[in-house]
Amino acid sequence: MASSRSADGSTVPVLKDLTIENITENVHRINSQCADPRLKYVMERLVSHLHDFARETRLSFDEWMAGIQYLTRVGHRCTDVRQEFILLSDVLGLSLLVDSLDHPKPPSSTEGTVLGPFHTHDAPADHNGTSISADPNGDPLLVLCTVKTTAGDPIQGATVDVWETDSSGKYDVQYEDRGVKADGRAVVTSDKEGVFWFKAIVPVPYQIPDDGPVGQLLERLGRHCWRPSHLHFMFGKAGFDNLVTALYIRGSDYETSDAVFGVKESLIVGLETVTSEQAKQYDVKEGTKLLKYDFVLVTDEETKKLRHDEAVKAMKGLGRENMMIVNGLPVPDVD
Amino acid sequence: MASSRSADGSTVPVLKDLTIENITENVHRINSQCADPRLKYVMERLVSHLHDFARETRLSFDEWMAGIQYLTRVGHRCTDVRQEFILLSDVLGLSLLVDSLDHPKPPSSTEGTVLGPFHTHDAPADHNGTSISADPNGDPLLVLCTVKTTAGDPIQGATVDVWETDSSGKYDVQYEDRGVKADGRAVVTSDKEGVFWFKAIVPVPYQIPDDGPVGQLLERLGRHCWRPSHLHFMFGKAGFDNLVTALYIRGSDYETSDAVFGVKESLIVGLETVTSEQAKQYDVKEGTKLLKYDFVLVTDEETKKLRHDEAVKAMKGLGRENMMIVNGLPVPDVD
Repeated sequence: MASSRSADGSTVPVLKDLTIENITENVHRINSQCADPRLKYVMERLVSHLHDFARETRLSFDEWMAGIQYLTRVGHRCTDVRQEFILLSDVLGLSLLVDSLDHPKPPSSTEGTVLGPFHTHDAPADHNGTSISADPNGDPLLVLCTVKTTAGDPIQGATVDVWETDSSGKYDVQYEDRGVKADGRAVVTSDKEGVFWFKAIVPVPYQIPDDGPVGQLLERLGRHCWRPSHLHFMFGKAGFDNLVTALYIRGSDYETSDAVFGVKESLIVGLETVTSEQAKQYDVKEGTKLLKYDFVLVTDEETKKLRHDEAVKAMKGLGRENMMIVNGLPVPDVD
Repeated sequence: MASSRSADGSTVPVLKDLTIENITENVHRINSQCADPRLKYVMERLVSHLHDFARETRLSFDEWMAGIQYLTRVGHRCTDVRQEFILLSDVLGLSLLVDSLDHPKPPSSTEGTVLGPFHTHDAPADHNGTSISADPNGDPLLVLCTVKTTAGDPIQGATVDVWETDSSGKYDVQYEDRGVKADGRAVVTSDKEGVFWFKAIVPVPYQIPDDGPVGQLLERLGRHCWRPSHLHFMFGKAGFDNLVTALYIRGSDYETSDAVFGVKESLIVGLETVTSEQAKQYDVKEGTKLLKYDFVLVTDEETKKLRHDEAVKAMKGLGRENMMIVNGLPVPDVD
């Protein structure tokens, strides 16, 4: 294809007489002016899939306009404390997929799952044994955990973000009068035995926010908007891959039909009841419910290697020659 | 795959242990509860392409989050008079593609092109000969056109929306103080000879709005944000397919590198100068520039047939069995 000198002096491909058949190749050509090879590759795949989607559905103007208006409504619903695009990504299974791609796990480690839109960065850093929930109506729960390496060694000093809803199924940020104080969330730190523990309330199933565009979509699709009972965890520790995960309470409603595709068998945990000894040791009432779990983190190095190997495999599967893998991400090999 | 009875009594597929490999099929299964077969098909293709995009790029969490934040910024930039998602669709070539799919044209007819984000519904209905631009700095232009059928018969009573920028390259809606009066736009009607004409100003190249997320994307891609000089037209007439198109002035800067992929050779027109006779007849100054064009509309029936045939061809190309074409759109043949 010819190229021409544009008014600003740069050389750009000639774009004229674009058709259903040649438009994609031509958009790639003009985007190939991009100096960032990774962005160039991401845009090439994005444009190819966007165009194929339109061609395969014979997308009508009215449907396209409905899509434009839908995305606009999703955007307008986003605020500092509500992320409707993350919610949309969640209900389309994209969030789980991206987590799996970015955080490949060896068999011996704890699986990750969806972050969800309700994590905040203002949870109080707190000591082991803290009570994360101020809700007097919740069913008290003692959470006793460890965090270890794949070799079974305790990890000391891992920060653990934990967050959950109140007993009515709402996160603190879903209340208009939340104010400045976080509730139902904390950041605790593992001790030298790799132990961390806190007091919480027994999680309940809840509806993802269904009063916006995502709720409308689920209704059109004949889907419910419930998530089974769960408690979120996010681990940070230098040298280890960040782990975003959650524990699901065995037997919860919606355990097999989570609206955001987050449930994994290895993350489902049956609740126990504290022993008399535990009640004394951890200063909780007799009969308090108990959640125990042993988490296993993967080192950065092991994760990097896995990510690299998976990316190489994927490029082979695609039949893409001339790709380099840089930090686990495929980029065109420009020379 | 097993299914289970959920708490609300409906039967839904069991979703657990979703992986990079099985997530797509599982999202399809839960979306297959949708009662609208067309929406079901559109969502199936959307989810497949979205997931393939993530798998093929090995999309990282940080990139996904950058995408979420980008779409949020696009949404927040949309107002009653600015549609940043349409602009995004335009610079990705999607708008042109959808127009081509929805409005297939036989060879003898006028080609369509991108609508763009600047059409409004408040342009004054006006008589032939009206002046659409109040800009005193514009170079005066006489526009003389006809609109006919593919058989060459004049079409009387077609409404023709026309719109253009002022001499500084801005549409009326891009001024904060636009107020209630439209400028640079009108709706005229063809007479019994199929003739319509009006006074305008010679179009100038302009930048699509580059002070928002779309401008930022173009910059990252090393692309300019200019459109070559053009004048928009939209035709409406019962019995004929709506035609959204534009005429491009031959020799304009950016003729071969339109930021929104709108230029087609058949829509490029060289400007003439009015003859003395024309100057008298149309009450314009000697030396006024002249734009002449003969538009050809396609009947609804012919368009429907073309749309149907193209959809059948596309489904064959995809190897999709069991699809019906309803009003030109593929839907799964449920029994």
